Amino acid sequence: MDRILATYRITANESESRVRADALAAEQSVEMPVGAIADKRIVDEVVATVESIRPLAGEFEVVLGIAPATTGNEASQLVNMLFGNCSLQPEVELIDVQLPAGYEKAFPGPRFGIDGIRKLAGVRTRALTCTALKPQGSSPETLAQLARTFALAGIDVIKDDHGIANQAYAPFERRVPAVQRAIAEANRETGGRTLYAPTFSGGPRALAEQARIAKESGVRMALVAPMLIGLPAFVELQVDLDIPVMAHPAFAGAGRIAPPLLLGKLFRLLGADATIFPNHGGRFSYSRATCHAIAAAARDPWLSLRPTFPVPAGGMTIDRVPEMLEGYGADTMLLIGGGLLSAGEKLLERAKEFVTAVG
Amino acid sequence: MDRILATYRITANESESRVRADALAAEQSVEMPVGAIADKRIVDEVVATVESIRPLAGEFEVVLGIAPATTGNEASQLVNMLFGNCSLQPEVELIDVQLPAGYEKAFPGPRFGIDGIRKLAGVRTRALTCTALKPQGSSPETLAQLARTFALAGIDVIKDDHGIANQAYAPFERRVPAVQRAIAEANRETGGRTLYAPTFSGGPRALAEQARIAKESGVRMALVAPMLIGLPAFVELQVDLDIPVMAHPAFAGAGRIAPPLLLGKLFRLLGADATIFPNHGGRFSYSRATCHAIAAAARDPWLSLRPTFPVPAGGMTIDRVPEMLEGYGADTMLLIGGGLLSAGEKLLERAKEFVTAVG
Repeated sequence: MDRILATYRITANESESRVRADALAAEQSVEMPVGAIADKRIVDEVVATVESIRPLAGEFEVVLGIAPATTGNEASQLVNMLFGNCSLQPEVELIDVQLPAGYEKAFPGPRFGIDGIRKLAGVRTRALTCTALKPQGSSPETLAQLARTFALAGIDVIKDDHGIANQAYAPFERRVPAVQRAIAEANRETGGRTLYAPTFSGGPRALAEQARIAKESGVRMALVAPMLIGLPAFVELQVDLDIPVMAHPAFAGAGRIAPPLLLGKLFRLLGADATIFPNHGGRFSYSRATCHAIAAAARDPWLSLRPTFPVPAGGMTIDRVPEMLEGYGADTMLLIGGGLLSAGEKLLERAKEFVTAVG
Repeated sequence: MDRILATYRITANESESRVRADALAAEQSVEMPVGAIADKRIVDEVVATVESIRPLAGEFEVVLGIAPATTGNEASQLVNMLFGNCSLQPEVELIDVQLPAGYEKAFPGPRFGIDGIRKLAGVRTRALTCTALKPQGSSPETLAQLARTFALAGIDVIKDDHGIANQAYAPFERRVPAVQRAIAEANRETGGRTLYAPTFSGGPRALAEQARIAKESGVRMALVAPMLIGLPAFVELQVDLDIPVMAHPAFAGAGRIAPPLLLGKLFRLLGADATIFPNHGGRFSYSRATCHAIAAAARDPWLSLRPTFPVPAGGMTIDRVPEMLEGYGADTMLLIGGGLLSAGEKLLERAKEFVTAVG
């Protein structure tokens, strides 16, 4: 099989580029001096190759050819080969990854993707709306009441705040059935199809238990932060859940993995059906170009993988809806959280304005 | 219970410090405008507090008081509250964490720690020696032969290279029993007590299967990269394994969590009995001060937690042993990998030199 092509940016003098590139190739494969390897097969088939070196101003880009066999076709080992040890070298950034055709089949990819979520939400062509239940510390009853209001307003997806996990004041086993019931009731009243995406968190046993509770409660979507629970656990959880999964970027700010690669491509490969990212002009400093590159990485044709819904978020308000729709197009889920909740008593009206603005 | 005190460094003008500190406190707890929260109990007990602001040159340090209840006493949610969303703000670094007494009891901490590993290895006071089986791509038979040589030389701990996971050329189920058998045989011949620490990787099901195989094979130590398999999976794996766990720093180079906090304190809290980190002067650019701060975070008295073995590594050679012993003291495990393997035919002699140098 062809090599995995991984692009790194290294901040160092151009005169060092060849030496640094060779060192990186060893670090990200055999992690020992290549000259000390007696077995020619390992040198030929296992050691990463330096495919190209491209000088830039004050830095250079290196493309390594990583042997797919070294990744064991598994998420933690794939990331280990891409950015395990060299993540500890602050002058190295991981910029992009090209996979050989067929390699992606070892990973789940989006099982529902944009079309699958559209079907569940009953929304054919317009952008989707999304909001969050907040703040943590609220009781299950308060959160259920809030969810009812949002569902009556016709919001497509109501997710837990990513800070709402499995705390004593609203444990998963009490909160999730209560919120799902409130949304189902509102759906019956309006004829709507609002989805609830609760936060899944914790270790494998906790996740399995949460999957069981969610299934029994009729939950049809999940919110998961892959970097918090771990990438291989994220992969495995989807098999247990069999509902669309929305990836949350918490703890993903490695800073030295390009956001379009991590939040777009890698989360998509590992199965995110929707991926939340900080929109430009909000509480986070991602540029417009970075945000559009994330959306492209999530949606553009890529091997045999379904497209993933881009979900720009983070301090968004209703008056930015037209601009966001123009920028991202309709295959987008717009997430406004605090911007609705600040309406206080007028929450239902504010939420309806959001729904109307999207259209 | 008292608050968790988390120290952040923010690169911004001092004039903004109060506004930024308040924004960070909201971001890392309720993630919505605090003024829009009607419930006074949530404002008092759930919203993070700004404990102090300290100006530095061109940046400032903020200490937040995070309510322990918001972490649900669980690893993924603890990290979420410490550095979930703000990891996406490149101007924010997480520097240190103080836990209230007793909070640590919700986490495993080192179950064996320095004393437990010393007992298993039969080493009372001197520093421990450690090396790695490399390169990946080698067959189980080759790796077993290599392990035999190291064990005959009297190395205390032989770990898999962190790149050796569960690949087709040496699957866990064939490799681990073969290597453990080779080491056990060498131990019988020498009367030694060399330990083998194979790499555990993958999702929860794979980890459970690997734990089963390791137990059946008589494996008495484990190598795990917490950031690759996920922090909560790391916690849970230890319960299944019930042997000392050595943490590997792969993928931990977030760069914006101070290494002494992540590799020292947090990995210790989550149960690492030994923690590998890149020593100064090797292939990685950690400073001497950073390395000694990691060792201190791993070993110094901290609440009720056992001390964790610091394991400086990364391009180390035998001629650096005296300097490392002087710098780190005897409660250290010295790891030399490639520096031994480059000896080729003279591997046994080189490994014996390492053992002798440590003394």
